Amino acid sequence: MKTISNPNPALWETLCARPSMDTESLRGSVQELMQRVERGGDAILKELTSTFDKVSLDHLQVRKAELEAARVSSELSAAIEVARTNIERFHQAQRQPAEVVETMSGVKCWRRGVAIQRVGLYIPGGSAPLFSTVLMLGIPAKLAGCKEIVLCTPPNDQGEIHPAILYCARILGITKVFKLGGAQAIAALTYGTESVPRVDKIFGPGNQYVTMAKMLAQQSGVAIDMPAGPSELLVIADRTCVPRYVAADLLSQSEHGKDSQVVLLSDSRLVIEAVQRELELQIDKLPRADLARQALKNSIAVELGSVEDCMRFSNTYSPEHLILVTGKNDLLQEQLINAGSVFLGNFSCESAGDYASGTNHTLPTSGFASAYSGVSLDSFLKQITFQEISPIGLQNIGPSIECMAETEQLYAHKNAVSIRLSDLENI
Amino acid sequence: MKTISNPNPALWETLCARPSMDTESLRGSVQELMQRVERGGDAILKELTSTFDKVSLDHLQVRKAELEAARVSSELSAAIEVARTNIERFHQAQRQPAEVVETMSGVKCWRRGVAIQRVGLYIPGGSAPLFSTVLMLGIPAKLAGCKEIVLCTPPNDQGEIHPAILYCARILGITKVFKLGGAQAIAALTYGTESVPRVDKIFGPGNQYVTMAKMLAQQSGVAIDMPAGPSELLVIADRTCVPRYVAADLLSQSEHGKDSQVVLLSDSRLVIEAVQRELELQIDKLPRADLARQALKNSIAVELGSVEDCMRFSNTYSPEHLILVTGKNDLLQEQLINAGSVFLGNFSCESAGDYASGTNHTLPTSGFASAYSGVSLDSFLKQITFQEISPIGLQNIGPSIECMAETEQLYAHKNAVSIRLSDLENI
Repeated sequence: MKTISNPNPALWETLCARPSMDTESLRGSVQELMQRVERGGDAILKELTSTFDKVSLDHLQVRKAELEAARVSSELSAAIEVARTNIERFHQAQRQPAEVVETMSGVKCWRRGVAIQRVGLYIPGGSAPLFSTVLMLGIPAKLAGCKEIVLCTPPNDQGEIHPAILYCARILGITKVFKLGGAQAIAALTYGTESVPRVDKIFGPGNQYVTMAKMLAQQSGVAIDMPAGPSELLVIADRTCVPRYVAADLLSQSEHGKDSQVVLLSDSRLVIEAVQRELELQIDKLPRADLARQALKNSIAVELGSVEDCMRFSNTYSPEHLILVTGKNDLLQEQLINAGSVFLGNFSCESAGDYASGTNHTLPTSGFASAYSGVSLDSFLKQITFQEISPIGLQNIGPSIECMAETEQLYAHKNAVSIRLSDLENI
Repeated sequence: MKTISNPNPALWETLCARPSMDTESLRGSVQELMQRVERGGDAILKELTSTFDKVSLDHLQVRKAELEAARVSSELSAAIEVARTNIERFHQAQRQPAEVVETMSGVKCWRRGVAIQRVGLYIPGGSAPLFSTVLMLGIPAKLAGCKEIVLCTPPNDQGEIHPAILYCARILGITKVFKLGGAQAIAALTYGTESVPRVDKIFGPGNQYVTMAKMLAQQSGVAIDMPAGPSELLVIADRTCVPRYVAADLLSQSEHGKDSQVVLLSDSRLVIEAVQRELELQIDKLPRADLARQALKNSIAVELGSVEDCMRFSNTYSPEHLILVTGKNDLLQEQLINAGSVFLGNFSCESAGDYASGTNHTLPTSGFASAYSGVSLDSFLKQITFQEISPIGLQNIGPSIECMAETEQLYAHKNAVSIRLSDLENI
C-alpha cells in the first residue's frame, strides 16, 4: 500500500480514478452470445453451460427434491436466521405509507409502491458460494411482493449448486432456481426461454461478461439494479482508531479479488504507519493472502491535513463502503456527500454490513455512489402516482392548465380542461 | 382508431406491443458525435449547433442579463405559480425522515437521502416550448438540494430560447442555462466542456438521438432518469364515463406526435362508439389535427368482457398514463400493477398531471412502467445507508458473521470480527 502525503487537491481526481474497465471490447462477443440464447433457448443454454461450466445438464432448473434436500449445519442455519431477521427488519422499515397530499382544494395526489412483478437474481459462482447475496436480494424482493423471483447461479463441474445457496433460496420461498451462470444467464432472464422465465428487472453482481450482458439487457428493455464494478472500501481514521481493526477491515476488502480497491485516509502519519505494520502482520495468516497482496499493491494510503480534508477526498472518491473511525464522526456525517454504505466507529466492521447487520450489501461501485443508491426495498417497487380531481378541484386548477397548455401550443391539452369547465359552468 | 372486440387473451401481448424503435442503428453516428464533443469541447458544440439548429453562437451559456430579461404575461406567471406550488407540495411530501432501526441490540442501521450534486436537465425544443418540463425536473432538483443544476435546451434559428423556459429557470434559481440541443447537449453534460459542466445524472425527454445519447452517457458512467419513448395514454371507461371527456383526453395525447400511443378499453361497445363519434367531432377543431389523426391511426379501442379484464389488459400494456373512469375505480386500483401515473374519475384529465396537479410528468413509456417509476424527489437523491455497532452489538451479531464468512471462504471478513471479539473478551 503506497503512502502519499498531502497531495495537492488538484491531483485528488487522478488519485481517485479507478482502473478503467474495458467492457466495451466485450460488447460484440456478449451480444452475439445473447442473440444465440434469444434464438436457440434452452438448447443453447445447455451448450454454453457445457462449454463454460464444464458440465452437461439435462435440466437447467433445480428440481424440487434437490432444493428440499439442501442442508446446512445448525450453526450456519442459526447464523442465517440472525442475518435474515436483521435484513428483514431494516428493509421492512423502508416501506412508505401512501400519503394523500391535497395540493390545492379538490386536487388530491398520492403515490403507491407496487411490486415489480418478475425479477431475476443473479448469484455469481467462482471461488466463493455467495449465499449472502441470495439473502440481500431475495429478502427485499419477497417483502416487496414480487410475484415471480427467478434465481440463476452457475453450477460446479458436477452440476451442483452450493447447498447454502439452495438453502437460502428455499427458506425465502424462491422456487425457480436455475443452474445457469455468466452472460447466458442474463440473456435467458432478458428474453426468456422454454424453461427460464423472462423478467422485468435483473439484480446482482457478476464479472465483466455479466456486467456487459446486463447493459445489453437494459437496451432490450429490461431494467437492472445498477452498473457493477470491483468492490471498494475507503477508511477515514484518526488517532481514535485501533490500527489492528483498520488493517483487518482493509484486508477483508482486499481478499475479494486482485482488482478490489482499498483506500486509507488519515490526518496522522503515525496512524498510517501503524496500519501498514498491522497489514504486514495480518496478511500472512490469510488463505487468500495472494489476492489481498495484489489488491493492496494497487491501493493507497493518503495523509491529509485534517479529517475534514479526508472527508472531502472521500466525497471525490465516492466509495462503495466508507468506514469512519474518528473523533469527529458526527461532523463528518454532515459533510458526507457520496458513499454507498457507511460504518461508524471502531466496532462497525464492514463485514457486519456484508452479512448480517441489516443494511444491503449490493452497493454502487466505481464512483457510481455519486448518483446511485444501493439496493433497497424501493429497488423492487415502482412508485405509481395517482390523482383524483373533483369538479371544484378542476375549477381551481383548470385555468392555470389552460394557460400553460396554450403557451406550449398544445390545444388539445387545453381543450380537455375547457370542455369540462364549460360543462361545470352550465350546471 | 381501430376497434377490436373481445380479442383472445393470447393475443393481448401482441396488441400491447409498441412499434419497435430502432435506436440501435443510430448508435454509430451518435457515438461518433459524442466522441467529437469529448475531444473538441465548445468549438465542436458551436459547430454542431450551427449545423443542426442553423444558428451561429458566440456564447453557449445564456447570459445573466438575458435570463433576467425573460418576461411572460401576468396570466402565465400566475399559472406557473399555481403549478409550481402544487409540484413543490407533492414532491416535498416525498421526503423520508431518517428512521433509525435497531435491528438487534447494539446494531443501529438507518438511511439518509443526500442530493446528487450535479444534475443535467434536458428540455427539448421543436414545435412546442416545454417550459412545464423545466418545472417538473427543476423543482425536485432544487428540493433535493442538488448543488449544480445545468439546463440545456436548443435555441431557435435566431439563437433564442423561449422566454417561458428562461422564466421558469430563473424563478427556480437555475442559473446555468445553455443553448444546446440534441445528442451534443447530452455529450456536453457527460464529458463536460470549457463552458458546460459535467454532471452525475441526466434527466429529461428527447428524440431518438437524445435517447441514444443518454444510453451511451450511461455507459460512460453518468446515470440517467429512465429510457424514453413516445408518450402514451390508456383509458379504461365504462358507462359512467362522459364520452366527450374521454375523446378530449385521447386527443390531448394524440397531439404530441404521430408516434404517440393511445388505447381505449371498455366493457361497453356503446361507450367505444360514442367516444369514436366524439373524436371525429373534436379533432377537426385542433391546430395539430394532422398529427393527432396520424397517432389515432396507430391506436386501438378494445372491447372486453368486464372492466376487470380491461385492468388486466392495461397491466399487460403498462401505460405511461392511465385514466380510470369506471364505477369500480376502487377495485381496479387494487388490481393495478403497471402504470406510470393514474388519473381517477371524469374530472382528472391527463393534462392536469402534465402541468399543474403536482405529480410529475416525466414518466416511464414503452412498457417500462413494469419496472421503472416516474421522476420524483428520490430521483435526485442517493439513499446512503449507515450503521453503528456497539461493542455489545458486535458481541450479539459477531458469531453469525464469522460463521457466514467462513462458509463463503472469506477469512479476512471473519477475522475483522474475530480480532474485535477477542479484544472484547479480554476486557
